[in-house]
Amino acid sequence: MKRLFYPLLLALCAQMSFGQSQDKSLFIPDLDQYKTLKCDFHMHTVFSDGLVWPTTRVDEAYSEGLDAIALTEHIEYRPHKEDIKAGHNRSYDIAKQRADQLGVILIKGSEITREMAPGHHNALFLQDCEKLDTPEYMNAFKAAKAQNAFIFWNHPGWDAQQPEETRWWDVHTQLYDGGFMQGIEVANGAGYFPEAHQWCLDKKLTMMGTSDIHQPIQTDINFAKGEHRTITLVFAKERTAESIKEALLNRRTAVFYQDQVIGEEIWLKELFKNAIRIEKVNKSDQNAQITLYNHSDLTFTLKKTTHDPNLTYFRDYVIKPNTRYTIHIRLGKTTSQGTIDFEVANLLIAPGKGLPYQWKF
Amino acid sequence: MKRLFYPLLLALCAQMSFGQSQDKSLFIPDLDQYKTLKCDFHMHTVFSDGLVWPTTRVDEAYSEGLDAIALTEHIEYRPHKEDIKAGHNRSYDIAKQRADQLGVILIKGSEITREMAPGHHNALFLQDCEKLDTPEYMNAFKAAKAQNAFIFWNHPGWDAQQPEETRWWDVHTQLYDGGFMQGIEVANGAGYFPEAHQWCLDKKLTMMGTSDIHQPIQTDINFAKGEHRTITLVFAKERTAESIKEALLNRRTAVFYQDQVIGEEIWLKELFKNAIRIEKVNKSDQNAQITLYNHSDLTFTLKKTTHDPNLTYFRDYVIKPNTRYTIHIRLGKTTSQGTIDFEVANLLIAPGKGLPYQWKF
Amino acid sequence: MKRLFYPLLLALCAQMSFGQSQDKSLFIPDLDQYKTLKCDFHMHTVFSDGLVWPTTRVDEAYSEGLDAIALTEHIEYRPHKEDIKAGHNRSYDIAKQRADQLGVILIKGSEITREMAPGHHNALFLQDCEKLDTPEYMNAFKAAKAQNAFIFWNHPGWDAQQPEETRWWDVHTQLYDGGFMQGIEVANGAGYFPEAHQWCLDKKLTMMGTSDIHQPIQTDINFAKGEHRTITLVFAKERTAESIKEALLNRRTAVFYQDQVIGEEIWLKELFKNAIRIEKVNKSDQNAQITLYNHSDLTFTLKKTTHDPNLTYFRDYVIKPNTRYTIHIRLGKTTSQGTIDFEVANLLIAPGKGLPYQWKF
Amino acid sequence: MKRLFYPLLLALCAQMSFGQSQDKSLFIPDLDQYKTLKCDFHMHTVFSDGLVWPTTRVDEAYSEGLDAIALTEHIEYRPHKEDIKAGHNRSYDIAKQRADQLGVILIKGSEITREMAPGHHNALFLQDCEKLDTPEYMNAFKAAKAQNAFIFWNHPGWDAQQPEETRWWDVHTQLYDGGFMQGIEVANGAGYFPEAHQWCLDKKLTMMGTSDIHQPIQTDINFAKGEHRTITLVFAKERTAESIKEALLNRRTAVFYQDQVIGEEIWLKELFKNAIRIEKVNKSDQNAQITLYNHSDLTFTLKKTTHDPNLTYFRDYVIKPNTRYTIHIRLGKTTSQGTIDFEVANLLIAPGKGLPYQWKF
Repeated sequence: MKRLFYPLLLALCAQMSFGQSQDKSLFIPDLDQYKTLKCDFHMHTVFSDGLVWPTTRVDEAYSEGLDAIALTEHIEYRPHKEDIKAGHNRSYDIAKQRADQLGVILIKGSEITREMAPGHHNALFLQDCEKLDTPEYMNAFKAAKAQNAFIFWNHPGWDAQQPEETRWWDVHTQLYDGGFMQGIEVANGAGYFPEAHQWCLDKKLTMMGTSDIHQPIQTDINFAKGEHRTITLVFAKERTAESIKEALLNRRTAVFYQDQVIGEEIWLKELFKNAIRIEKVNKSDQNAQITLYNHSDLTFTLKKTTHDPNLTYFRDYVIKPNTRYTIHIRLGKTTSQGTIDFEVANLLIAPGKGLPYQWKF
Repeated sequence: MKRLFYPLLLALCAQMSFGQSQDKSLFIPDLDQYKTLKCDFHMHTVFSDGLVWPTTRVDEAYSEGLDAIALTEHIEYRPHKEDIKAGHNRSYDIAKQRADQLGVILIKGSEITREMAPGHHNALFLQDCEKLDTPEYMNAFKAAKAQNAFIFWNHPGWDAQQPEETRWWDVHTQLYDGGFMQGIEVANGAGYFPEAHQWCLDKKLTMMGTSDIHQPIQTDINFAKGEHRTITLVFAKERTAESIKEALLNRRTAVFYQDQVIGEEIWLKELFKNAIRIEKVNKSDQNAQITLYNHSDLTFTLKKTTHDPNLTYFRDYVIKPNTRYTIHIRLGKTTSQGTIDFEVANLLIAPGKGLPYQWKF
Repeated sequence: MKRLFYPLLLALCAQMSFGQSQDKSLFIPDLDQYKTLKCDFHMHTVFSDGLVWPTTRVDEAYSEGLDAIALTEHIEYRPHKEDIKAGHNRSYDIAKQRADQLGVILIKGSEITREMAPGHHNALFLQDCEKLDTPEYMNAFKAAKAQNAFIFWNHPGWDAQQPEETRWWDVHTQLYDGGFMQGIEVANGAGYFPEAHQWCLDKKLTMMGTSDIHQPIQTDINFAKGEHRTITLVFAKERTAESIKEALLNRRTAVFYQDQVIGEEIWLKELFKNAIRIEKVNKSDQNAQITLYNHSDLTFTLKKTTHDPNLTYFRDYVIKPNTRYTIHIRLGKTTSQGTIDFEVANLLIAPGKGLPYQWKF
Repeated sequence: MKRLFYPLLLALCAQMSFGQSQDKSLFIPDLDQYKTLKCDFHMHTVFSDGLVWPTTRVDEAYSEGLDAIALTEHIEYRPHKEDIKAGHNRSYDIAKQRADQLGVILIKGSEITREMAPGHHNALFLQDCEKLDTPEYMNAFKAAKAQNAFIFWNHPGWDAQQPEETRWWDVHTQLYDGGFMQGIEVANGAGYFPEAHQWCLDKKLTMMGTSDIHQPIQTDINFAKGEHRTITLVFAKERTAESIKEALLNRRTAVFYQDQVIGEEIWLKELFKNAIRIEKVNKSDQNAQITLYNHSDLTFTLKKTTHDPNLTYFRDYVIKPNTRYTIHIRLGKTTSQGTIDFEVANLLIAPGKGLPYQWKF
């Protein structure tokens, strides 16, 4: 009774019907010149120390409307290896068919897993993960670079490896100088690393945000409460693996972490502009009203900054998703036009620093 | 770099902290003489055609407050066998330590998986699942019986195997007469089988309800919407594997399926009695009020039945969990005491038949 | 300090920003010739025995994406009248500005509130509700008819008025024959009345579904659990009050109650057709697959009916909102095309009877 | 037809059954010597500028498990007064019966509503609110003081009144010095005012947190997402109005705002101690484990502070409600006991300063 008989095949097909809903997808607007792709480049399956089958990662991604993912199994740490005997490319191979079927872009990658320093790094866009299975860590980085991989440092502030502070080690200078590190995780799962955020700005490294999910995604992320996994927003010319790589190499990313988006000012400014539609500006007597609609699934937290002293308006303002607001401004006696100035406090252009913005009336 | 080094060990420990919340647990009251145990005896992991690691099934069960589970991998159908090479006891062995740690009772079992007839059957309380791996199905049943297994027929109305109707085949008579079948799934996942419900009543078989979960549980069950997995309520003397077996053999079960509990009248009556606390009975003039509190997590749907024509009271009444109600009764001129009669429509004592009940005043 | 000073005005404006999100709106497709409008023609505010201010009913409606509502205060039952002294048109007048601002169509109506018979009735499209405030119920109906009102019988199975059964009284024959009743509530809040459903079919009355909400809507309806209020779907030529009236008079409605839509076959057939997009039909060997996408927010429950005995396919099938499915059909030896026949069990064309439907392949 | 006839009475009774579930109640532990009472002393109904009937505020409070509330209608601002003509005590009088029935303590209070300065203030424990209806604000404060009221300043950072900064005005010095102000709202609805937090510490004022709810509570608070209204935790000797007053006068309060509790160190320390049960301390070789259980409904965010350099443990740690954790500590070579030191970052003992704490092993 070893053959695959019909009823079970049908059963499997029935299961394949499931998960084809994208009910957890969040709308984040495109930039003027680039598509905004939602990507998660760090996750695990039973092929390393994760707890789900590779296809489940694709189903989860589809359900959340992600554009691209990478299954980044640890090369060196495979606690299920007594039962699962497979090469380092196997996880990708299993997931590929399902990814193609659902239109999720699957990037081949691996996690180079060492003690600090250098700690853990992900290499993306590999052709053969096997080549990274080598005792000396530097040889693993070389094997990745030989494949033109995009390499980033994972969870630089993980307390299991950095128990006292988020420290940059000499080894990281070597990797950086040698072209073995193009990005850093600014956020990983529930953790945000302000030092890493600053390093990315100073050293022109790509900001990465990942889930590093091991459990079924719903175990860690309570979607009913409006939670989402930490992801990288990639601002790409096209929705292709090649375009994603080009964008990563050119640092066109932002990190969507909890209720914050972390990235360079140039991209966050466009993101905000494209999320908010100014519908109407009314002026009457000594008042102005700006009516706007947030047609994204992002919440924005506004904070008044230095401004025209003739204008009286909000100090803090919360703009919820898919909601229309009318902003009220009291004008000074001689004022009939101007700008209101504020910071979008949860669009972080540097540690602790929100995006400066203004609206005209 | 192949040894398990410290940082990863710590990481694993950190993960073990997760999932130790029982926030999805539903309170269902005990009976007068028996504990009500919440059990799921049908589920799969990557060791057959499921999609999660065995320990995840234990974590899920703990989180939902289940008392006992069985990982019932298909003996004959193992689509991941190219990657996972392991014996039929392996899934149990992996999960056992985690189950002991969290206090979840883990029952060793397997699914004997054939075309119809006989279809699929679960054997519980096995010592060695390997013995069931044999070409002739009858030999598999014999191997289970030789281990004093409790055996039940799975999803008897599954349309992949019973495309036109839920049919009892000659083979089932042979299994039943030969003592190879002690129960039937009256409900499996999202499906309820009224014919099987009637067979259990007629043939004195144990009513079983199971999730048959393959995905991560949260993929199929939306807990935020108040959904729960289909389970068997076992009315046991103690919270032990032995007591569970004794209860199953003596047909002391009920099936908790969607918003219904399906079982024999004797148990459902006690369950309802123990869920509702009558707090106060007021009588005044020609009115009576019964104040009651539903201290269970079950919803009850009452439907008036034939009753004293001098009494006027509700026709349909919904009793929500953990809520206090005052039932109003208008009395006829000469009435000062009596009973209101109704059916608890969602406590099913037979297909389409709710539990008859009455309250005195 | 009695004048309305600036800060409070600003505060009120701020409040007006709230509630302008339509995040609870459900998408239900249009018919071929008609727009599907979501309407609730039975609700209360503090101006009768409700518990919220009239504008709140508009905000709630907007938030749920309703197209039209009516505030149907009881003419005769006003328990807050010691504090609220106002005429019967006042509730409408207060709500009108907010309704216009948010684009919700506000229909003027009242509830004629009597003991059984005739019980409670709603009159819609009134010009002056005051005229209905008269001791004899028949005069109230006449006053409504004189204003060309559309009148329907409310909750005909309400156990407070019909404690033993849902009965049609002689008075209802008089109202019906006299042209004083054009519709009946087939569902009101959590109650469905199968007898009323049949009366509508037999007597050509318009099927109505309403919330009859008294509390804040979220107290009764748990939106997070996917619940919605009971509404009338009106199939109208335009999104205007006039078109709604024309549709009501011509019985182009359906009732959206819990997970069911109740209405005449002709409309439910179009509704289902327009909710499901057939994306692909594959045939190969002795199998066919139909791939479809449910782009509505309705769930559909399919049940196989009498069918070509050469075809093997599902017995029960659940089609969730915004989800893609592939239906598998096994063909008999000589079959290469045909239809699969089923009933959409939760689209009720008569009490207990689902919509018959078929898909070709 | 003006009398209250039976069926409607029954209907009202039926409605009274609703809302008697406390399913939104959060468990916050008592202190060693005091009960922790959950209180909201700032809210509105249709009797000022709120949108619900007074009894609805009691039902909402009961449903959330609040111990005490005050309906604090604006004396001076009553936008519904054209329709609602009633004295300033009326709102209280209407709600009182329902509060007694459900066991919610109802405190009589009013909001003295003026432009800045002095802005808005609530007076609690009034006997007659009418006395506060007087043109000069100082007379209103005197009328409140004459009734031994507890008076606090509302939303001191409200941008409609303090558009540029949260400023303390001369008038507040006069009120404070004259004994007309005993507390300040440190948080009001979605706003937290760090300046007011500091003033409470410096001037020995009672810290207050309130919802200031105008809408139905569920419109502003999404309970399904785990949100709660802003409340004052009152640490009282008994669950009585008198004990609440005594506690307020002696500054035994804390503010539960979003995921933070704000209060004096002495109370927050006890609160944390009583929320966490240390279940086990294991030591082996050079490791220690502390197993603990958070049996409250509060989440705690731990942050390592200056500590014994021989110990390696977490940097940040999140303790979720009703969850068990095992904290891992690596010991230096000669260490066998000690303490781990941390701050509970979301228990705020001053603006930006978490509660210092330590666990022994």
